[in-house]
Amino acid sequence: MDSGKDGEDSSVTNPMLESKRTRSNNGKGKGKAIATEADPPAPSATLVTTKAYSPLTKGGGWKKGVAIIDFILRLGAIGATLGAAALMGNNEQVLPFFTQFLQFHAQWNDFPMFEFFVIANAAAGGYLILSLPLSIVCIVRPFAIGPRLLLMIIDTVMMALVVAAASSAATVVYLAHNGSQDANWIAVCQQFTGFCQVSSEAVVISFVAAISFACLILVSSLALKRK
Amino acid sequence: MDSGKDGEDSSVTNPMLESKRTRSNNGKGKGKAIATEADPPAPSATLVTTKAYSPLTKGGGWKKGVAIIDFILRLGAIGATLGAAALMGNNEQVLPFFTQFLQFHAQWNDFPMFEFFVIANAAAGGYLILSLPLSIVCIVRPFAIGPRLLLMIIDTVMMALVVAAASSAATVVYLAHNGSQDANWIAVCQQFTGFCQVSSEAVVISFVAAISFACLILVSSLALKRK
Repeated sequence: MDSGKDGEDSSVTNPMLESKRTRSNNGKGKGKAIATEADPPAPSATLVTTKAYSPLTKGGGWKKGVAIIDFILRLGAIGATLGAAALMGNNEQVLPFFTQFLQFHAQWNDFPMFEFFVIANAAAGGYLILSLPLSIVCIVRPFAIGPRLLLMIIDTVMMALVVAAASSAATVVYLAHNGSQDANWIAVCQQFTGFCQVSSEAVVISFVAAISFACLILVSSLALKRK
Repeated sequence: MDSGKDGEDSSVTNPMLESKRTRSNNGKGKGKAIATEADPPAPSATLVTTKAYSPLTKGGGWKKGVAIIDFILRLGAIGATLGAAALMGNNEQVLPFFTQFLQFHAQWNDFPMFEFFVIANAAAGGYLILSLPLSIVCIVRPFAIGPRLLLMIIDTVMMALVVAAASSAATVVYLAHNGSQDANWIAVCQQFTGFCQVSSEAVVISFVAAISFACLILVSSLALKRK
């Protein structure tokens, strides 16, 4: 009886190991262990271990679903950031009339904010592509904390970058549309309508990317929490 | 012996309850239980329960420290957001010369971005003050998931709001300082130096608040993770 007691104790002292074994064996090994042991208290104690860790085992499927949502959101955000960068980076307009000395020409790099916009969105898109393998790791191993925490921290920084880029570009677009009477700034969009149209579209797409980033952070925080 | 066994089993089936009781009694009740039980295997099984949950109990102090850092960061962010809002909200300058019809007067609500800046920073400051009680709850109960997750989600939204406000105001300040040759916008800061100075300071303080928010999200994510 003493040796049987010892065997039971060692299985209880390492509950993490125990629950892992239970999952991998699909409960088959457990049934065998109960059958070989003739001592009555032994099965009850073994049962307890499984019970205490059942929320962890059940949470696996739920966490896998969250990880798949994370992956899909990332794909969408890649499209949005790279689309916004490409749209703004190819944005220029030449007006069909010109004087002897002057051609009316608007280009995206006339404004440093639009340059920042293109760089920030391209950087966010590049990061998102590089993050896809880590996101797949999170699908395969739903309980891994390290990769998810790393992704979440960089996601937060990138969200701040994309929001900053989008809102500074939005400010320029607003001023170009409406001008500012107090500062005596004219509304250049009255001439360059096409240029302003494309800029506005790029800004809207970039805000969509920012919302995707916010959802990514929310999803990661749900996946990080215990239970 | 059987009744002693039963008593031990009930203490094992509810390990969460058990570990809580151990903490609140400072181990005194546990010692008594060992003293009254004459059965040799009983203490070893009881010991096991405490051992299995020791990382959880040990993590409490670490999590409490994280919660206190969260509280201090919140106090700093309150000062930064409300300071930035107050600085920008009182920002106006009247030039000492005027014509018969015109007085040169710059005020913060000449630009809609500055209005947005004041509103967003005041809103973030108000939220932070309201969040202090929840932050204290997180210090008192380091294992509570609900309040921390709620704080983290609203923190993310507020960080996006503050970053958007700060960067759109920064864009206006940049344009006021440098103008834009291509859009034919003049640099109004050449006249209104004091106004531009105060606006720049408010923008910098608001970016400090945004960094505090990023740190708050990082701290919350560390506190949410298992172990």
